[in-house]
Amino acid sequence: MGRTLIKEIFKGLECKVTIYGWVHKIRDLGNITFLIIRDRSGMIQVVVDGKLKTDLRLEYVVKITGMPVRNDKAPGNMEIDCEAIEVISDTEYEMIPLQINREDIDSGIEAILDNRVLSLRNPKIHSIFNVQQEIASCFRDFFKSNGFTEIQTPKIVSEGTEGGSELFPVKYFGRRVYLAQSPQFYKQMMVAAGYERVFEIGHAYRAELHNTARHLNEYVSLDAEMGFIKDENDIMNIENEFLEYLFSTISKTCESELNLYGISLPKIGRIPRMTLQDARGIIKDKYGKSSPQGNIDTEGEVLICRYIKEKTGNDFVFLTKYPVKKRPVYAMPDPKNPDVTNSFDLLYDGLEITTGGQRIHKYRMLYENMKKFHLDPEKFGFYLDTFKYGVPPHGGFAIGLERLTLKILKLTNIREASLFPRDMERVAP
Amino acid sequence: MGRTLIKEIFKGLECKVTIYGWVHKIRDLGNITFLIIRDRSGMIQVVVDGKLKTDLRLEYVVKITGMPVRNDKAPGNMEIDCEAIEVISDTEYEMIPLQINREDIDSGIEAILDNRVLSLRNPKIHSIFNVQQEIASCFRDFFKSNGFTEIQTPKIVSEGTEGGSELFPVKYFGRRVYLAQSPQFYKQMMVAAGYERVFEIGHAYRAELHNTARHLNEYVSLDAEMGFIKDENDIMNIENEFLEYLFSTISKTCESELNLYGISLPKIGRIPRMTLQDARGIIKDKYGKSSPQGNIDTEGEVLICRYIKEKTGNDFVFLTKYPVKKRPVYAMPDPKNPDVTNSFDLLYDGLEITTGGQRIHKYRMLYENMKKFHLDPEKFGFYLDTFKYGVPPHGGFAIGLERLTLKILKLTNIREASLFPRDMERVAP
Repeated sequence: MGRTLIKEIFKGLECKVTIYGWVHKIRDLGNITFLIIRDRSGMIQVVVDGKLKTDLRLEYVVKITGMPVRNDKAPGNMEIDCEAIEVISDTEYEMIPLQINREDIDSGIEAILDNRVLSLRNPKIHSIFNVQQEIASCFRDFFKSNGFTEIQTPKIVSEGTEGGSELFPVKYFGRRVYLAQSPQFYKQMMVAAGYERVFEIGHAYRAELHNTARHLNEYVSLDAEMGFIKDENDIMNIENEFLEYLFSTISKTCESELNLYGISLPKIGRIPRMTLQDARGIIKDKYGKSSPQGNIDTEGEVLICRYIKEKTGNDFVFLTKYPVKKRPVYAMPDPKNPDVTNSFDLLYDGLEITTGGQRIHKYRMLYENMKKFHLDPEKFGFYLDTFKYGVPPHGGFAIGLERLTLKILKLTNIREASLFPRDMERVAP
Repeated sequence: MGRTLIKEIFKGLECKVTIYGWVHKIRDLGNITFLIIRDRSGMIQVVVDGKLKTDLRLEYVVKITGMPVRNDKAPGNMEIDCEAIEVISDTEYEMIPLQINREDIDSGIEAILDNRVLSLRNPKIHSIFNVQQEIASCFRDFFKSNGFTEIQTPKIVSEGTEGGSELFPVKYFGRRVYLAQSPQFYKQMMVAAGYERVFEIGHAYRAELHNTARHLNEYVSLDAEMGFIKDENDIMNIENEFLEYLFSTISKTCESELNLYGISLPKIGRIPRMTLQDARGIIKDKYGKSSPQGNIDTEGEVLICRYIKEKTGNDFVFLTKYPVKKRPVYAMPDPKNPDVTNSFDLLYDGLEITTGGQRIHKYRMLYENMKKFHLDPEKFGFYLDTFKYGVPPHGGFAIGLERLTLKILKLTNIREASLFPRDMERVAP
């Protein structure tokens, strides 16, 4: 008999089925045994009459044949009346280091990550990555339907995009190269190559000396870049539209996962936009807190989000017009005020999840800026020369996939939102 | 007026339009000038009456407003009667190093790659990556619709999957780690983590000392892995189905790109399967060529594909049952003949594009195999321990995206099928 996925049974199947899955729970009452079987689609109770004839342990992989029956006392009101159990794969553990079959695993983050294959078997933890993949899918679907081409660009690069700091060096056939901090140069080059609108879902690497609940050293970056824009407002507009699409989509497609975390996503509407300068002023005037020069700090991000939330009800805010000195060499200066750039950050519930803006698209301007930034134009020739050959005004942004997942599900540590996180201490599993 | 994409005009628009794009060709006849304008969607002729008032050079980015009119002599039988030209972005070149506007760029592969942003502006080269992205999309769509979950796994790893050879070392906070050769361990761990069926589209790194037309040191790997299989035949079945789906889909969605390359894709049908041993025999008997021990070489791959093509008309062939000694530690031995494994390669038109097979899913067996392979089980604990906790029989495969693109379009060098290829010599652009 072919395999039936557990979730199908809850649709009201009334014929004998065969399921495959893991033994999630065993409750042996002597003359009757209740099993909970778990597969990729869900869990179901299996009732075995009399003593178990098969030697079963938790997490055995089994094949079970039986009749689905309604039972108002069973989880989901359905159970399987067991006819046959076959062990497909057994186990070799002395003790399972995590209690997979509790609703919340009662262990610290390090134990959860050390035993990642096991913690991912827990349905609530499992569901984080259903949501994450749905976020990535929404990103892809939205940008494709807006005429963007998906790209894969190299992660082995000869120079960093931000000028050499926080790079991981790679030994490459006797040469020293680096892991890409972002696809910045390449996505701009792809716009210039005539694709005009591109996006990428790929890894990015930051050798940041931070080991906080907000930092990963390898993360998945959702990048988009588009040509023929007027200024950075076009970029904020499309990111705003994407986020509205995302929230309305996953509210439906991830309903059960969001329910597990007690999340109900609001309508986003138009995200407020405010200059960095105004935000600094509010943080100072309303909360008495000074911000670092040309920026705001982690605490400031929380405060300005609180202010916006109270004022407008929105969890998001775009901060705009960051100073030239705080932005990379390719950031387009504001024609009305050359001390600031046509750039923005997007904060979500107290956390920066995006950096974006308009880029310089004129060769001479970029060349001069490199000199101003003490970067050697020679070294960046592969990128700089692009702008000799006709490049439209363009800009883009990047969202950290793990940060977005973290905030949507209100997790506490970004490592929870990465399958196999890499941080200053951790390179395994 | 809003922007109209060029391809829309060929659908028969009869109202004034504004297009944005690059100046692809200029033919100045004195009293009339013909321009070819190129945007991401296509090219169109623009007719300017009288002398050009705007100073135009090739590759200027322009905005043109005018009336679409039918003209049987124009390419695609449509042209635009120009009313206004505005230069959006000019150029700073002395000479364009490639002749973008010829059908085929008349330059060697190194010049094409050195000037990648320019060569990608050539419509025929541009179209390679339309096809490539459609291949990736088909892979994603096919496996999603078969219950597979997309994953992103780390590319920074503490150990190589094949035991330490051909790895790129990364300096990671004072430690030595490596770039992942494949997501092998992680995709197996994700099957074991209860996702059962997973796929990944991501980078893989091989520090191979080959600089051939078939090798890249960074490439995009289409990986799939599935649990609850009987043996490697289930894996070949699903890969076969995927390829049928792929060919029938891109025959429609990439019709114009395939036409540019003169390609008409055949129906695939059931791909022949043959043991490696039989293939070696045929190569020897039919073509008088000896093969290296336990494998066949590049020439043998071409010969066996020629044989299969003549015999069955199929461009593909699965070679099965590779010897234990030639496969990685995790390859499942054939229960009927423990000298060979439940593994396969897929050859396409003389080139290996896939390695796959069933994996060992029992802890004890994998542990013993590691010792046999002189690998330290301690070092691989993060992977090995997985198999203590109940793992279903499983297997999978990987397809090199660039190799598949190369073969479908009958390109001659794999670098043509990578946006920004990385090889022993090249790390830029």
